Amino acid sequence: MKTTENNFSKKNIGDMPVEEFRNFGHQLIDWVADYFQNIESYPVLPNINPGDIKSKLPKTPPVDGESMEEILKDIDGKIMPGITHWNHPNFMAYFNSTSSGPGILAELLSAAFNANGMLWKTSPAATELEEVTLDWFRQMLGLSENFWGIIYDTASVSSMHAIAAAREQLSEYQFRQKGLAGRKEIPRLKIYTSEQAHSSIEKGAITLGIGIDGIRKIPVDNEFRMIPSQLEKAITEDRENGWLPFCVVATVGTTSTTSIDPVNEIADICKREKLWLHVDAAHAGVAAIIPEMRFIIDGIEKADSLVVNPHKWMFTPVDLSILYTRKPKILKQAFSLVPEYLKTSEDNIVINYMDYGIQLGRRFRSLKLWFIIRYFGTEGIANRIKDHLRLGKIFAEWIGQNTNFEKMAPVPFSTICFRAHPQDLNDEQKLNELNEQLMNSVNSTGKIFLTHTKLNGKFVCRLVISGLRTEEKHVMLAQEILQNKLTEILT
Amino acid sequence: MKTTENNFSKKNIGDMPVEEFRNFGHQLIDWVADYFQNIESYPVLPNINPGDIKSKLPKTPPVDGESMEEILKDIDGKIMPGITHWNHPNFMAYFNSTSSGPGILAELLSAAFNANGMLWKTSPAATELEEVTLDWFRQMLGLSENFWGIIYDTASVSSMHAIAAAREQLSEYQFRQKGLAGRKEIPRLKIYTSEQAHSSIEKGAITLGIGIDGIRKIPVDNEFRMIPSQLEKAITEDRENGWLPFCVVATVGTTSTTSIDPVNEIADICKREKLWLHVDAAHAGVAAIIPEMRFIIDGIEKADSLVVNPHKWMFTPVDLSILYTRKPKILKQAFSLVPEYLKTSEDNIVINYMDYGIQLGRRFRSLKLWFIIRYFGTEGIANRIKDHLRLGKIFAEWIGQNTNFEKMAPVPFSTICFRAHPQDLNDEQKLNELNEQLMNSVNSTGKIFLTHTKLNGKFVCRLVISGLRTEEKHVMLAQEILQNKLTEILT
Repeated sequence: MKTTENNFSKKNIGDMPVEEFRNFGHQLIDWVADYFQNIESYPVLPNINPGDIKSKLPKTPPVDGESMEEILKDIDGKIMPGITHWNHPNFMAYFNSTSSGPGILAELLSAAFNANGMLWKTSPAATELEEVTLDWFRQMLGLSENFWGIIYDTASVSSMHAIAAAREQLSEYQFRQKGLAGRKEIPRLKIYTSEQAHSSIEKGAITLGIGIDGIRKIPVDNEFRMIPSQLEKAITEDRENGWLPFCVVATVGTTSTTSIDPVNEIADICKREKLWLHVDAAHAGVAAIIPEMRFIIDGIEKADSLVVNPHKWMFTPVDLSILYTRKPKILKQAFSLVPEYLKTSEDNIVINYMDYGIQLGRRFRSLKLWFIIRYFGTEGIANRIKDHLRLGKIFAEWIGQNTNFEKMAPVPFSTICFRAHPQDLNDEQKLNELNEQLMNSVNSTGKIFLTHTKLNGKFVCRLVISGLRTEEKHVMLAQEILQNKLTEILT
Repeated sequence: MKTTENNFSKKNIGDMPVEEFRNFGHQLIDWVADYFQNIESYPVLPNINPGDIKSKLPKTPPVDGESMEEILKDIDGKIMPGITHWNHPNFMAYFNSTSSGPGILAELLSAAFNANGMLWKTSPAATELEEVTLDWFRQMLGLSENFWGIIYDTASVSSMHAIAAAREQLSEYQFRQKGLAGRKEIPRLKIYTSEQAHSSIEKGAITLGIGIDGIRKIPVDNEFRMIPSQLEKAITEDRENGWLPFCVVATVGTTSTTSIDPVNEIADICKREKLWLHVDAAHAGVAAIIPEMRFIIDGIEKADSLVVNPHKWMFTPVDLSILYTRKPKILKQAFSLVPEYLKTSEDNIVINYMDYGIQLGRRFRSLKLWFIIRYFGTEGIANRIKDHLRLGKIFAEWIGQNTNFEKMAPVPFSTICFRAHPQDLNDEQKLNELNEQLMNSVNSTGKIFLTHTKLNGKFVCRLVISGLRTEEKHVMLAQEILQNKLTEILT
């Protein structure tokens, strides 16, 4: 077979010649391998100022093409100094997302195919592998066959789609057709979620035209879990005041403390009140693949939808968020819109994933999920998460035993909320300042990266163990640095 | 530096060992290189039935990890037979998106870093490279410095954000806070776009609570361009009927025919009527980097926002869609929401891209744009697009000269709408059937992939030339197959 590349001209036509791709591809694979080999030699958090990276880059694009040598050289010289290393074993901030070897290799392949899975026809393998891997993952989570899944990019988008489906379920109002604005016959809409819910729920509500006032934040108990009786009370109150409650978002693993809302009880309320129940388990949901942890989604079969992100705690390169729903027909009703130019003869017998969301273009994301589940196996994945839970326990116990620190929330997973609290210091303002100083000073070492939250007005440090490369020694290092920095500050 | 991998155990902890990654990475690079070398030996469109791929895959996930050999073997055996080859030089369907070598290598690197660009702090290089590359691309398009850019995943999402900003601009109604539903004091909202606009505009309107009724489709002229006087008339009429017009979406390169709405005239109407003007140039916008083609966005400086997708006609692996806007403050006002756990000390002096959209997690997408612009150079990219325009002209001329075919729309770019029209056949119903049959029969050769649209009720074939590997000989092949298949059908 003759190839097109004999006509390649950098200035005029064609892709990078295959032999050049091969050469630089091999170099880049070695570069990435070396990067992972030496990952601990990099500062987790770069020590630079805003504008430092920009100032090293030309202000105008090159007219003539440059060599791959030049470009790769700049990765080391200009990009690496500005990278926050999410793969570093001591990245313990936010909810971490680490890449794994099989996930990276799958992304290489997926970029090469560049298949767009909008329709079955536009790459049958992309659609059918999505069906198969999401069914595998459904089984891993212990969900029944009533749940149907779709991959979106992020949990924010998954949850937005869930709330949109909840809105669509109010079919008598024909929101898809008639919209929400300026209709005197419809009531204002209300969503319920806890005070600890992720900001994406509010963003979803803003986007969908529900508005911030359309979200009621239900108080939490002293373990930061939504209080079902308060939810019930709020719904009754709102109905009396003319609001139309339509959706509840429960969280399994809230962002600040990973608290677990009582899904089972909340689900019963939703059933009685005929509200769509969406469960945001973006970070913690994967823990349900461990049988002893399945309790975290107790009651899930009564929920309408659930989001879990393999790109958070399952070693999958961003982005890959999964929405499972028992009501795919309603989701499709909300979003399906097939112009002539996208009609195919198979439309009635296949899944065209574009029908289930706002995005038309869809990367071949299931490939990485498939590589990862196959390479590690379900037991391998479960055991890695178990090990994180074990390490979380070690750190939590250290905090508990250390008279200079205190635990600020229960630890159902491997995220520990704590603060320094020397025995003679009880001024809350000063404690807040001390802890902010401590966190900044720990982060400035470049050896570890923690972030914070506020709980009941108190500045709290969070340490999250969910990285693929994090081992006991890294937790020990975190403890050592925390202890040393606190001593430094206090003396 | 000690690495973590000496503790690797597939069943329990750690990532794929670095040497294994290196080994299979090299294998995969060779696989991809061979794939591109032999791209023309694959059928563009796979010859399979729904369910064929699924039936070859296990119904349950493996408990024990499998070897990379096994997994890669299944790429050839189980996945490849179901791939629609978007990279094939004779993929001439939809709006094509082809991967380039530098783009693929950048994606490998981006998956390896797995940096999340939600905040400046979470990877300063990701944020600052996004600023720099979008400023480069802005210059390439000839846009003034008034335009500020952000990368989203798809044009559907970019346009949704533009319409959301338009909605937010109606600040007196406080939609972000109060929502749209059940408010007796607000009017119904109206967006205007042409009959030929992409379905994503409607999906955006559905999502945002505007509803399908909130979209008015303005008639087009005989070259499929929005008629400004009709737009003006519609706005007046709607205002008189109590609607609140707030946004117009003009298209530069509509999906069916790549017609170009008169942006300049539309912009003047929007200015007078105080409406947000969004320009959807997702596919065709990149052509504006050719100076002779810059006229396609004449008047753009009066528009409020513009979407262009490098992942369509600029050889960038999906996904990478850019929204430029002159009003980033309004976009931020619509979407910014910073919970405590995402606050950083740099918030006031840096761009945190998460503030400008619904998505929190953000892949390091600017890397591929940077690789591609640098590798090909601005002239190299422009010349590739010029060559597509040249090839489009060749095909259009062939259609024009061939008595059995007719051109069904003007060809401002390299998308040709045509149909078979034998001189003795004038029954429209039969012509529709003939052309559907012709398209299916051409596609069934596996040598070329075309799609269709309908124009004024007529079934029309579309041939799109925008692939990185498409040369004159591929256009000749398309002509030959079309001619032969038509002869076959007619005899």
